[in-house]
Amino acid sequence: MSVVVQSIERADADVIAGLGECGVATVHEAQGRKGLLASYMRPIFSGAELAASAVTVSVPPGDNWMVHVAIEQAREGDCLVVAPTSPCEDGYFGDLLATSLRARGGKGLIIEAGVRDVKDLTAMGFPVWSKAIFAQGTVKETLGSVNVPIVCAGAHVEPGDVIVADDDGVCVVRRAEAADVLEKARARLAAEEEKRRRLAAGELGLDLYDMRERLEAKGLKYV
Amino acid sequence: MSVVVQSIERADADVIAGLGECGVATVHEAQGRKGLLASYMRPIFSGAELAASAVTVSVPPGDNWMVHVAIEQAREGDCLVVAPTSPCEDGYFGDLLATSLRARGGKGLIIEAGVRDVKDLTAMGFPVWSKAIFAQGTVKETLGSVNVPIVCAGAHVEPGDVIVADDDGVCVVRRAEAADVLEKARARLAAEEEKRRRLAAGELGLDLYDMRERLEAKGLKYV
Amino acid sequence: MSVVVQSIERADADVIAGLGECGVATVHEAQGRKGLLASYMRPIFSGAELAASAVTVSVPPGDNWMVHVAIEQAREGDCLVVAPTSPCEDGYFGDLLATSLRARGGKGLIIEAGVRDVKDLTAMGFPVWSKAIFAQGTVKETLGSVNVPIVCAGAHVEPGDVIVADDDGVCVVRRAEAADVLEKARARLAAEEEKRRRLAAGELGLDLYDMRERLEAKGLKYV
Amino acid sequence: MSVVVQSIERADADVIAGLGECGVATVHEAQGRKGLLASYMRPIFSGAELAASAVTVSVPPGDNWMVHVAIEQAREGDCLVVAPTSPCEDGYFGDLLATSLRARGGKGLIIEAGVRDVKDLTAMGFPVWSKAIFAQGTVKETLGSVNVPIVCAGAHVEPGDVIVADDDGVCVVRRAEAADVLEKARARLAAEEEKRRRLAAGELGLDLYDMRERLEAKGLKYV
Amino acid sequence: MSVVVQSIERADADVIAGLGECGVATVHEAQGRKGLLASYMRPIFSGAELAASAVTVSVPPGDNWMVHVAIEQAREGDCLVVAPTSPCEDGYFGDLLATSLRARGGKGLIIEAGVRDVKDLTAMGFPVWSKAIFAQGTVKETLGSVNVPIVCAGAHVEPGDVIVADDDGVCVVRRAEAADVLEKARARLAAEEEKRRRLAAGELGLDLYDMRERLEAKGLKYV
Amino acid sequence: MSVVVQSIERADADVIAGLGECGVATVHEAQGRKGLLASYMRPIFSGAELAASAVTVSVPPGDNWMVHVAIEQAREGDCLVVAPTSPCEDGYFGDLLATSLRARGGKGLIIEAGVRDVKDLTAMGFPVWSKAIFAQGTVKETLGSVNVPIVCAGAHVEPGDVIVADDDGVCVVRRAEAADVLEKARARLAAEEEKRRRLAAGELGLDLYDMRERLEAKGLKYV
Repeated sequence: MSVVVQSIERADADVIAGLGECGVATVHEAQGRKGLLASYMRPIFSGAELAASAVTVSVPPGDNWMVHVAIEQAREGDCLVVAPTSPCEDGYFGDLLATSLRARGGKGLIIEAGVRDVKDLTAMGFPVWSKAIFAQGTVKETLGSVNVPIVCAGAHVEPGDVIVADDDGVCVVRRAEAADVLEKARARLAAEEEKRRRLAAGELGLDLYDMRERLEAKGLKYV
Repeated sequence: MSVVVQSIERADADVIAGLGECGVATVHEAQGRKGLLASYMRPIFSGAELAASAVTVSVPPGDNWMVHVAIEQAREGDCLVVAPTSPCEDGYFGDLLATSLRARGGKGLIIEAGVRDVKDLTAMGFPVWSKAIFAQGTVKETLGSVNVPIVCAGAHVEPGDVIVADDDGVCVVRRAEAADVLEKARARLAAEEEKRRRLAAGELGLDLYDMRERLEAKGLKYV
Repeated sequence: MSVVVQSIERADADVIAGLGECGVATVHEAQGRKGLLASYMRPIFSGAELAASAVTVSVPPGDNWMVHVAIEQAREGDCLVVAPTSPCEDGYFGDLLATSLRARGGKGLIIEAGVRDVKDLTAMGFPVWSKAIFAQGTVKETLGSVNVPIVCAGAHVEPGDVIVADDDGVCVVRRAEAADVLEKARARLAAEEEKRRRLAAGELGLDLYDMRERLEAKGLKYV
Repeated sequence: MSVVVQSIERADADVIAGLGECGVATVHEAQGRKGLLASYMRPIFSGAELAASAVTVSVPPGDNWMVHVAIEQAREGDCLVVAPTSPCEDGYFGDLLATSLRARGGKGLIIEAGVRDVKDLTAMGFPVWSKAIFAQGTVKETLGSVNVPIVCAGAHVEPGDVIVADDDGVCVVRRAEAADVLEKARARLAAEEEKRRRLAAGELGLDLYDMRERLEAKGLKYV
Repeated sequence: MSVVVQSIERADADVIAGLGECGVATVHEAQGRKGLLASYMRPIFSGAELAASAVTVSVPPGDNWMVHVAIEQAREGDCLVVAPTSPCEDGYFGDLLATSLRARGGKGLIIEAGVRDVKDLTAMGFPVWSKAIFAQGTVKETLGSVNVPIVCAGAHVEPGDVIVADDDGVCVVRRAEAADVLEKARARLAAEEEKRRRLAAGELGLDLYDMRERLEAKGLKYV
Repeated sequence: MSVVVQSIERADADVIAGLGECGVATVHEAQGRKGLLASYMRPIFSGAELAASAVTVSVPPGDNWMVHVAIEQAREGDCLVVAPTSPCEDGYFGDLLATSLRARGGKGLIIEAGVRDVKDLTAMGFPVWSKAIFAQGTVKETLGSVNVPIVCAGAHVEPGDVIVADDDGVCVVRRAEAADVLEKARARLAAEEEKRRRLAAGELGLDLYDMRERLEAKGLKYV
């Protein structure tokens, strides 16, 4: 049952970078309001940003052996996306693993569990989104899998999917949809610019978005 | 059932500002240890501070239509206080709405739900206290109400009540009691100055507050 | 039932300081992966660090009287470790108590409850790890005990145990084991230096730790 | 700050009983989907049912003194609605208090905290909805208030409001609205009977409620 | 984005029934310890059991419109598996919908949200596993999808997958693997019978499973 | 680090049985309101009762190997008390282990993790208090310890301590204090009988416990 899939497809690096520039909230909207990981996935430092291709890792509770295995599969521009097979907040990952992952071109980590050495990781500028910060050590006794489909923090993630993460959380974009989502996200950003300008000038969303008639039709009463 | 109350009374601006200077912990004590919102209401950035008059907003889960409606009701010095009718952590509010609310004189947001665009909101210095940071988008399909009494994070809030918020959390002060609470809060701060000086000099609270006799009467044993 | 134990033994100050330099994750590993407090114990500001001797405090819910009593028992280099007798997140501790504790030589606070005045505590550089930030005031009506064994956030703490705390959380080291744990922690740090260098150079953990054969024996398949 | 309001108005006993027959879900709908307490308020035994007039009790954390005070204020057909001033799950109430409350005509308890002696309470058929079952004892040291407005589990409750509770949870109905809500609830139940019959016969909600056209207009695609 | 997939494949009815007889724990083990929904998914009554083919439903928070749409897609032996697009505990489903679903051959409900009318559902013997029991009403304003892949309580569910649920929780079995999993589950049950007999006779697992040597090799010390 | 302590002292069987008759709430009060495990430790069936001597088990997350080891250490009248080294809700224990434990004289299980096969365990009348019901399987790869001091659900438990558990939760009594606590618990029960009779007759706690004067002195106002 424990496999390491060595060959996966990745999205275009420019598309990945472009999605990162758009940010989580915009990308999530652009792809039809899907793909968000649960809100308990928080960055270990403020301002952390990541756009990368997912190497998925399914791990047993309290056992980080497969993280070592996964790092070998990482390529320039990848991140690890780690989900335990049952809820766990142990510290699977610290500064040594970050050093190793970065040396292989890895850009960051998404883990529905714990992380430690956050002072060092912050000093390294190595971005991590995790469910917990917890120093609890893990063992290396039980296998898991690398580059298989996983559910991480409520989101289905396939190897090679694009991960976008920032202060707002984490969003996954299907590899095959990435280019299309980027286009929509950019269009969305462009449209927002004009809206921001008008709202800043004092125009109301009620007028900008033409809501008054529909509100009245629904029965809203002003008293 | 869905109403927008357009005319509400507000506390005096100087009183509101004065309460803000006293801070949440002092104001809460000064008014008899009441009015705190639940501890899960956290600021999106460290050092955020707010003292404002509440425009209350009751919203359906996953629907931010009424936030647009509420912004029109905001006046200089107001903040929005938003509570969903059932628990929800969707991202009701982001930088566009903040831009719009600020253009109307709005000072900040208290929301027992989620917020997004926190990087932008932080850059704007727009203070928000929320239950979650979550990019999940909302719809505009169902009505709610503006400026009706609500329960937000366990606290009863009336439109026009004073909201004080800082790193310690969020406190609501009844409009009619605001001036009186301010007076008591200032007295409290003045008294603390002397206490701080004596404690810093090494005097013990046991002596400063004359506790030894009462502790002994209650039965405390030193061994 | 309510006692204050006035005479407790403490670990050597140099040992305590040495453990602090090693940090929570290393100390926890060095003593056999035990002694961590629950992951919900978080510092009130990023970068907070503490190494100190525990003065333990058992408190009733919503009553901080014994904190005043405990401060008298603190010596240079101590910290308070406070656990309520049932779950509570009230704000037992603020800047006045911190001022008093510091004046007695106290270095910080570990509390499985709430804390307030975090802006002031941060400005003072007074480190606190707590379960919550909450301004809710407490009373002084019911006794507890000082310097008795307690369970704080899932960890058994004896008076005089060594507390190490940083961004990764909080760890308790038995007083009698402290010197031995320090030695092991330092050995661990020394060994990590070489590993970090090799991992940074691109060597894989799989090779550095000689894992490939054992992974294969366990049945891992590369596809 | 600590008061006992001795004279409160109550809804008509027949109205209260009628609301109880309608049940929580129907009453909640009939009054416009408001008044529900949080979902963590669960009955201590399956099948528990309550319809009663609220005697409200504001209590400190870990202190049940005011429950004794409140029982004196109870009249035939009342229930206690207890909220701590900060989150607490201690066991404020057990079989002795239930015996006393019942002797005064009390019908049950709603408490946003803990309860104990649940085996005895179940044997007595004394219905309780609580946030926790927990044997932790409380003290009698600090005052609170009786028959003042409170927020209990997210709902604003006034003394004399009607409480309806069953396996679905707890709902509060404003005293002044009780008769009107009962009428609407009964109308709702009558209408449901016919719907239930048609649905049981295999008719679809899509047809019964005429949804198909609106679904299509909104853009639903069948593939 | 909102679609209803009308034609889905289902597993063989005998296979589904067979899996139900094996129960959740055995099925989960037999398929390699995967497929469990989160532990917060609990049956509304003790002894509830379900084995059915999944009709999946993706719903907005607080909106149960698509449940009506989904019931039309149910066939004899199906159950609904409902996941909101963001966390929600509203009561999407009650006795009227259960009546309708049952009339179409539906066997039960799995919902990562709330359910209501649990007294009636229990009286009907209609099994439901939910995240909450909550009477909060929902609206019918926003579309979702039926028979698309969803993540429900941390598990990926495809339309036509087999759902097995009992007092231990909920497990999903891929349609294509169902027959194979059934075979393994039955083999497992057969093997357990002999083990149960030997353990009941006082034989130790240490001997039955031949663990002593391996424990010693790993370093276990008896003192 | 992994040890099995084979020889532990136990309290007198009559004392254990006597404590069981008193029940959790009374025992907890009789020993000075200490020793309760956290309120999330719930029985798997209503009416479960246990009074037994603790065999403590420290287990890794997701690994139930040491439960097999612990069963060999159980004697007539013992129960297992199991705590994972980090939070975990996997199903460590099911009907096969219960069969084995019972064959050795074991009376029940306290586990700060998950349990499965609850239908079978209920049919066996085998009492379990757990943090979760979860079918997730565990492995047998990593050692732990048996009969060492542990912290289980917030309570410090030594091997040979007495465990009392019922619908109200779980309480631990130090072995050396058991006889004394029993005496106090029985005295408490005797005193309660008279109180119950008087309260049932309508006497108020305010009078029975002579509270009125002290309430007035504290400042309670009747209005």
